Formats: sequence, structure tokens, C-alpha cells
Amino acid sequence: MADLDEVGSDTTVVIRSHGVGPEVKQEAVDRGLRVVDTTCPFVTKAQQYAGRLIDENYRVVVIGDKDHPEVIGVVAHTAGKAIVINTVAEAEALKFIPRMGVVFQTTHAIGHVQEVVGALLKRGKEVRVFNTLCGATTSMQKTAVELAPDVEAMVIIGGKLSANTAQLAEVCRKVNPRVHQIESADEIDESWFAGIRLVGVSAGASTPDEVIAEVVERLTNLEPAAAGASPR
Amino acid sequence: MADLDEVGSDTTVVIRSHGVGPEVKQEAVDRGLRVVDTTCPFVTKAQQYAGRLIDENYRVVVIGDKDHPEVIGVVAHTAGKAIVINTVAEAEALKFIPRMGVVFQTTHAIGHVQEVVGALLKRGKEVRVFNTLCGATTSMQKTAVELAPDVEAMVIIGGKLSANTAQLAEVCRKVNPRVHQIESADEIDESWFAGIRLVGVSAGASTPDEVIAEVVERLTNLEPAAAGASPR
Repeated sequence: MADLDEVGSDTTVVIRSHGVGPEVKQEAVDRGLRVVDTTCPFVTKAQQYAGRLIDENYRVVVIGDKDHPEVIGVVAHTAGKAIVINTVAEAEALKFIPRMGVVFQTTHAIGHVQEVVGALLKRGKEVRVFNTLCGATTSMQKTAVELAPDVEAMVIIGGKLSANTAQLAEVCRKVNPRVHQIESADEIDESWFAGIRLVGVSAGASTPDEVIAEVVERLTNLEPAAAGASPR
Repeated sequence: MADLDEVGSDTTVVIRSHGVGPEVKQEAVDRGLRVVDTTCPFVTKAQQYAGRLIDENYRVVVIGDKDHPEVIGVVAHTAGKAIVINTVAEAEALKFIPRMGVVFQTTHAIGHVQEVVGALLKRGKEVRVFNTLCGATTSMQKTAVELAPDVEAMVIIGGKLSANTAQLAEVCRKVNPRVHQIESADEIDESWFAGIRLVGVSAGASTPDEVIAEVVERLTNLEPAAAGASPR
């Protein structure tokens, strides 16, 4: 609560799209602060499902990155009881769980959660899964994966710490190894595209349109490469 | 009910391990017949979970062979409402199901159901899975799969129509293509083992010990092949 201690009583607190634990929001309300909650609706659903599973006596497993703010918020909705795992190996290392409830970090790739849920089936008798993937992210990944094999290289634009950008790059890499992840046009290295004429571009959910436009312009002006934005 | 019509009132009706629908058993009881129920406990659990999921307003999906007597019995426990699918393609072809309950044909291989459940995650919001695989079958498959890569050929013994024998052969084939499925020693063809010295043997759940012994003896007497029974 250190952050809330530091703000004045006339402050407006904005909860970002990743969400927070219920006690953080309650604390802000209790202090009489104005709260603007911009938690992504997909994240809100994941929080609600996790809380409901705990209420119904399931052991909750979150498939996600334990250090990601969204996952920290979802775990907070289980009073800290949820287990966070992110790999098949971590799933297989779990002790047997008779009643297991599962939710996903909303920006994860479907292929990744399919594999981890498969491993969880061996560790539980009942495995109750709520598919909490973000529809927009899933759709973006699907489009990018369809584009990637048809181009000679892919450029993925988004924050270095952005989970959905990282997943986007990862799913593309599975179908085309030549994937370059950048935050802005400045990071483009012409040598990446030596001898390449056709480049695909996709971007993370929060990447501003003007950043994408700059990257595409820069790629288009490279010689002899030609850039094509996703979807073609 | 044709079968029950044909039996006398002093008959004992034996329900085999694959189980039957609730109405078949009730009909036998109502007619005053003696009923000996030898339904496998794993099958009974699958029937119960399927019935419970229907009662709790889930659309039930059975991963199994729709013509197998066990699956027919499980579907009967959902008043015929369950959908039966057996492949990733069939899972992906389903319409969206908001509340999906899933059970497995008990003799299926874990690797197979993992793949199909993965596909089902795309077709449902909530996917509530009861892992109804038979512990003994799963354990037998695991042991055989560990043996198969270390031998030059595998012999799988069991009924041609036995689902668990077919799955056993299938999981072995994924790690060693030289798998021969037979019902008895008579079917052994010496040419299968030309130049082979080490053969692995495994058998379906209902294969009699003496049949296995005959096969092992026959293999041991082949020249120049040497047979090794599973597990070594």
C-alpha cells in the first residue's frame, strides 16, 4: 500500500489494464480516492473465474508469468492461494490435485496453454479450465501466424516487457525463424534484411499506430526489401 | 431390450466390464432377473461423471469410439445427450460450447486425450474435464512405451476388437514402427523377425496369461530372434 500512502486525498487513482488485487482497489475506495478502473474486461473475467474456483474449493492453477502484474492481480483474487506455472515441466512437477481449477494469463498463446493443460490432465482427477485468453490477442496471433510462413522475415513491434508482444514473436518464430522484435523504427538494422524482398509486420496490443506506421515506412524505404503489413 | 426378452425369468444377467446404460440394468431388475454387475470401476466412474455433468447443465463430450460398448453405455448415462468425438479434427469441427464437460473412454492413451482436449479448449469457454482413464491401462501403456524403443520389434497380444489392445499398439508404434498385433501364438509370422534378436512383448488387459506365455515361448524358440517380456 506504499503507493497509496504517498498520494493526496484528492487524487484520482487509475487502475491500468493489467488489473490489481481486490484489496488494492478497496483500499483506494476506503481512502475516499477517486478510482478509475481500466482493467481489461478479459482480465476482470480471469480474476472472477479464479475467485469463483477458490470459493468452490478448487485448487487454482494460473498458467502465466508469476512476475507479470496481471498474474499478480489474478492470484490476489484467490487470496494468494493460486499456484502459478508457465511450462509443461512445471505442470508435470506438481503433486496430484484432485480438484483443479485453471485460468490463463490473457495474453498467452493458445498453443502454449494447450500443451500445459495437456500436462495438467496427468496431475488432476478433475481439471476445470476457464479459457481466459483475450479474444483480440488470440486473433492477432492467428493472423500473424498465417502471415509469417509467406514472408522472408517478420518484424514484431511492441514493448520489450509486453507479454502479448513476446507471445506474438514466439508464435511467429515457430513458423518462421527470422523474427525481429523491436520497440520502434530506430532499432531496425538494415543487415537483417539483406537479400530479402518481403517482410511481414505485426504489433502488440498497446503499440501506437504511429509507431507501426514509422516502422512500415522505414522498411518500405529499405533497398531491396519490400515490407507488407499484416494482414495482407 | 430384445436380448432381455429372450431370457427366462430364472436367468442370471451378467453385465460385462464395459457396462450398460441405466435403463438396461433397471429393466433386468424390474423383470426380477438376478443381475451380476461386473462393470469396471473406472467405467462406472466415467458413467457417473457424465451423468453428473448433464445434471449440472454441461454439454457432455465423450472422447472415444462411438461404436464401442463402453462409450454407448456412458452416453446412455446422459440420456443420449452426449456428443462423442475421437479426433482433433472432430473437436475442431464442433460449434462453440460455453459449458463443456468432458470424459474419456477409459482405455484411451493419455497422449491422445491430451491432444483432443487441447483442441476442445478452442471450442469452449469453460471446459471441465474428468480424467476417466483406467489406471491399469495407463500404467501398461507407459511400461510398453518405455520398452518399445529399446527392442527391435514389439508384439502386442490381445483381441482384434479390444480397444485397450489397439491403443497399446498405437502408442508403441509412435516410438517403434515395427509393432505386430496378434491374438495368439498361431498368428506369428517368422518373417517378421528376420535378422532380429530382441523382441518386446506386451498384452491387452483381458489377454489370458497362458496366451501370453505361448507367444513368449514361440518367440523364444525362433531363430535367431530372442524375445524379452515387458517389463524387462
